[in-house]
Amino acid sequence: MNNFEYQNPVKIIFGKGEINKLGENIPEGAKILLTYGGGSIFKNGVYDQVKASVKGFDMIEFGGIEPNPHYETLMKAVEIVKNENITFLLSVGGGSVLDGTKFIAAAACFQKGDPWQILSRQSPVLDAVPIGAVLTLPATGSEMNGNAVVTRVETTEKLSFASQKVMPVFSILDPEVIFSLPDTQVANGIVDAFIHVIEQYLTYPVNSPIQDRFAESILTTLVEEGPKVMANRTDYEAAANFMWSATMALNGLIAVGVPQDWATHMIGHELTAYHGIDHARTLAIVLPGVMHINRVQKKDKILQLGKRVWGITEGNADERIDKTIQKTKEFFESVGIPTKLPDYGVSTDTIDKICTRFKKRGFKIGEKANLGPDEIRLILEDRL
Amino acid sequence: MNNFEYQNPVKIIFGKGEINKLGENIPEGAKILLTYGGGSIFKNGVYDQVKASVKGFDMIEFGGIEPNPHYETLMKAVEIVKNENITFLLSVGGGSVLDGTKFIAAAACFQKGDPWQILSRQSPVLDAVPIGAVLTLPATGSEMNGNAVVTRVETTEKLSFASQKVMPVFSILDPEVIFSLPDTQVANGIVDAFIHVIEQYLTYPVNSPIQDRFAESILTTLVEEGPKVMANRTDYEAAANFMWSATMALNGLIAVGVPQDWATHMIGHELTAYHGIDHARTLAIVLPGVMHINRVQKKDKILQLGKRVWGITEGNADERIDKTIQKTKEFFESVGIPTKLPDYGVSTDTIDKICTRFKKRGFKIGEKANLGPDEIRLILEDRL
Repeated sequence: MNNFEYQNPVKIIFGKGEINKLGENIPEGAKILLTYGGGSIFKNGVYDQVKASVKGFDMIEFGGIEPNPHYETLMKAVEIVKNENITFLLSVGGGSVLDGTKFIAAAACFQKGDPWQILSRQSPVLDAVPIGAVLTLPATGSEMNGNAVVTRVETTEKLSFASQKVMPVFSILDPEVIFSLPDTQVANGIVDAFIHVIEQYLTYPVNSPIQDRFAESILTTLVEEGPKVMANRTDYEAAANFMWSATMALNGLIAVGVPQDWATHMIGHELTAYHGIDHARTLAIVLPGVMHINRVQKKDKILQLGKRVWGITEGNADERIDKTIQKTKEFFESVGIPTKLPDYGVSTDTIDKICTRFKKRGFKIGEKANLGPDEIRLILEDRL
Repeated sequence: MNNFEYQNPVKIIFGKGEINKLGENIPEGAKILLTYGGGSIFKNGVYDQVKASVKGFDMIEFGGIEPNPHYETLMKAVEIVKNENITFLLSVGGGSVLDGTKFIAAAACFQKGDPWQILSRQSPVLDAVPIGAVLTLPATGSEMNGNAVVTRVETTEKLSFASQKVMPVFSILDPEVIFSLPDTQVANGIVDAFIHVIEQYLTYPVNSPIQDRFAESILTTLVEEGPKVMANRTDYEAAANFMWSATMALNGLIAVGVPQDWATHMIGHELTAYHGIDHARTLAIVLPGVMHINRVQKKDKILQLGKRVWGITEGNADERIDKTIQKTKEFFESVGIPTKLPDYGVSTDTIDKICTRFKKRGFKIGEKANLGPDEIRLILEDRL
């Protein structure tokens, strides 16, 4: 195991009915900006629960944060935070609303020029407005980490930043929010969480049995509970197990002391930037290609995944690797997520554009920085 | 899964050579009280590493904190903290030194009478001196939680308290500290961590697959890595995996949303109080008795433990339960820890005293508060 540092102070408040604890967790006298997305919170009852709990606080509302939140939209909220002397950001929504809120929190306190530099140059976040979250969609794990991804429409760029300063002070996770979600969003959440684990697990062995087994625990639970949530949206226990899996998938714990990959995410982000494909779906497209091209480098871990999660023990190593990639694809497809580029109307033109962009950036990606434009082309061509 | 709240802000600094990060993690200008135990830190090089890293800080030293730290000793340190205006406590030692330091931290800030009430009446800890830890012995998990156990010699009482306020600000875990530990301490650590997991896992099912699998991950890793550490004290990888297992065993994560037991600990504490038996050894004695008397109530989880950790799949339920208890005992014995009372010279006299004490306390223990003096007698008689 490699040396590491780990600290995650986010307070998790988990379970049915827990949204009513919101008010008591916000600092007294706070002036709140409530951030939300497309307005589903008005239909599923979450907004009413939030309003009831924050009674007495001075609160302004800012809606319309998009899936893959737009820099342009978020900067409007930054203006409100500054002009209205907002002291607390309350994100009520899924990962996109929360990611956007993290950027708002950092940008509002950014003193050194254009806040876009937080994303484009990874300028350090020295301060941020405190954030509380009510999660309405289990998927990204944003509720228990300091990561955010933001899209700039003007330049079709999708970039990320990470800072302890934008970790939520608290996140309220009531699994009942799942009851009203459409199939597409639940499926996206299952696949997103699954691939978050994969990016921290499917690398090369460093003798880390706790981290490996925790990762396999989350994967196995998603494989078991995911279909239950798809089949019966009001199965509370399945919803709770799915929701906790998604949080544990990306709160940093399974990443301690082990290598990470994230190539699938970096390539997937480009598919969202160019075609607006849902984040999770881009990952489901790209991952099988990454597994295939890295089948030698990732051999040990792919075999371990095959054995411990998919129960694959028959055949030689190459056959077991093929079966493991196949089972992984089939899992995504079983929840209704296609894994080929043509399924989303994406052609070789886009592959050219993406490879050109990676060439321009000039750095390679992946756990051993071994994937440059040529390898990324092979990965994407594998998905045609 | 039950509703829960979870927050653990302890910063973990893990790996070889990391003690040199100590100084940069202590607040500038802090006046430090360094607390330690019997003096092994002077022999194994840890003290020198600590001293080199805290150069420039004003520091007083307080040694002699006992295994099962004594209230009487700790109160002397409380006087020093008050008289010398100490602003930071630096615990350099194992779980006993750290538990003792937590009590010092809370007692020094206790305003409402005798600090013993923190233990005897569970008086709330409203404030505490901040603590940093350098761990020299993986076992108790104290490095990543707010729990502490303290013994009062005068009354032969061993009591615990828990508060977020005494969680270490940071804990440095360098697995190399294990290299110089004697067999007895390593064996104690393995068994202690194992039974911490058991107390949070071996109860009754509440549909918590993530928590169950994480618990089984830690147990399986202890079963695999423990013997390696026993056989070769300088196997760094095994030491690291053991150390991380012990921390994960009791940082609250596997306890979220599930019932807990702790009967084994509560009975074990009495054996330490009356006979000074090492904490871990008291647990190894008591646990098989607790499993036996709760074999109906804990049936599902004992069978799950048997199958997933010990690989027991043959026989009817009763036979598998017996085998699971047997395998668990054998594991403790395999690292040199006997599991019967007579092995420690304890006779029926002590059983009488312990049962009288529980009778006087007037409450029952265990996951369903089903163990009173009569059941505790049966548990201990099973261990004769």
